[in-house]
Amino acid sequence: MSTGKSDRGNETRELLLVTAERLFAEYGVEAVSNRQVSEAAGQSNNFAVGYHFGTKDDLVVAIVRCHSESVERRRTDMLAEITSSPDLRDWVSCIVRPLTEHLASLGSPTWYARFIAQVTTHPAYRERVVNEAVSTRSMQQTLEGILRLAPRLPEEVRQERSYMGRLMIVHMCAERERALHEGTAPPRSTWESTAAGLVDALVGVWLAPVTARR
Amino acid sequence: MSTGKSDRGNETRELLLVTAERLFAEYGVEAVSNRQVSEAAGQSNNFAVGYHFGTKDDLVVAIVRCHSESVERRRTDMLAEITSSPDLRDWVSCIVRPLTEHLASLGSPTWYARFIAQVTTHPAYRERVVNEAVSTRSMQQTLEGILRLAPRLPEEVRQERSYMGRLMIVHMCAERERALHEGTAPPRSTWESTAAGLVDALVGVWLAPVTARR
Repeated sequence: MSTGKSDRGNETRELLLVTAERLFAEYGVEAVSNRQVSEAAGQSNNFAVGYHFGTKDDLVVAIVRCHSESVERRRTDMLAEITSSPDLRDWVSCIVRPLTEHLASLGSPTWYARFIAQVTTHPAYRERVVNEAVSTRSMQQTLEGILRLAPRLPEEVRQERSYMGRLMIVHMCAERERALHEGTAPPRSTWESTAAGLVDALVGVWLAPVTARR
Repeated sequence: MSTGKSDRGNETRELLLVTAERLFAEYGVEAVSNRQVSEAAGQSNNFAVGYHFGTKDDLVVAIVRCHSESVERRRTDMLAEITSSPDLRDWVSCIVRPLTEHLASLGSPTWYARFIAQVTTHPAYRERVVNEAVSTRSMQQTLEGILRLAPRLPEEVRQERSYMGRLMIVHMCAERERALHEGTAPPRSTWESTAAGLVDALVGVWLAPVTARR
């Protein structure tokens, strides 16, 4: 009996997560209330989000965690494979491919890329999401690998390029996800070639000479 | 008398534009209603936006037009100066600097960069905004200059890199504007050096070799 109750609890939790991800992806985190998430998930209790997750902030982080474990695992595996590769492309791939491969593994439609684009554009949510999804151990290791192989860059340029890379990955994936969902022709035919385009461009960003400082 | 009335009309219009830009920049276009814009602008008539602009779509485009004339003029002047320069940096500068110089000319605080980041992330507004602000004659000329000097790229890669460049410019400018507004240390100390960092990175993106197609 107590197991049955907990199963139902998990099902409700799962349903709320999937519903919130979709609504946030389509309308933005600000535009959707916890109450609307509960209603759209068919919960008679309008406080279901509060009961299962706490604040909207906590809900956003819970959605990120649903995905970040798989992304992290893929990155850790890739890092183990490239060990101490002297090729910058290998390290840049470890930034890009864990996310694109995760998205490919979810089938269609996905909402996560658009969700991430929304929350990382929003000042109130960005910091926690970035901490959850980007400032992980495997991501730090990857970034160290890139910095070892990129030309020597001033600290503010490192930060700038790292941020630019994140922007490119997040928004290009969101763009492709949206095109797939709307049935319009996506710019690239597969997640694999989306990743290839991103890796090419990001290698270009990291190798670009610095002509002026501060 | 009729002049006075029209002056007041222009003042109201101006006030609504400034208020809408600020609210859209801070909360997103979706989260703010025309009624809230009218109220925040101190209009007793809640339909002031409708009366002066029409739909929210029209209001968004009107805000873009407030700025795009100055941005366009700067770009046209820059293009006249570089004429047929063989240096890719000059052409990439014509993408970046007209916006950063316009933002610098507005003093502080500005809202336009965050406004543009919000509307270009939003599927419903993006197309019209991109058409207004990006698909202009001077921008087309600039892009042609870049493509003349960049290595030969497949059409989908051209589009992809052009889109990546837009993302980088819009979000880096929005980021800096937000930091200035919140009084936190912006990554670069001036709009001028923000532009320099963007030009460096964008030249890297355009020169990056293509390793895989579609």
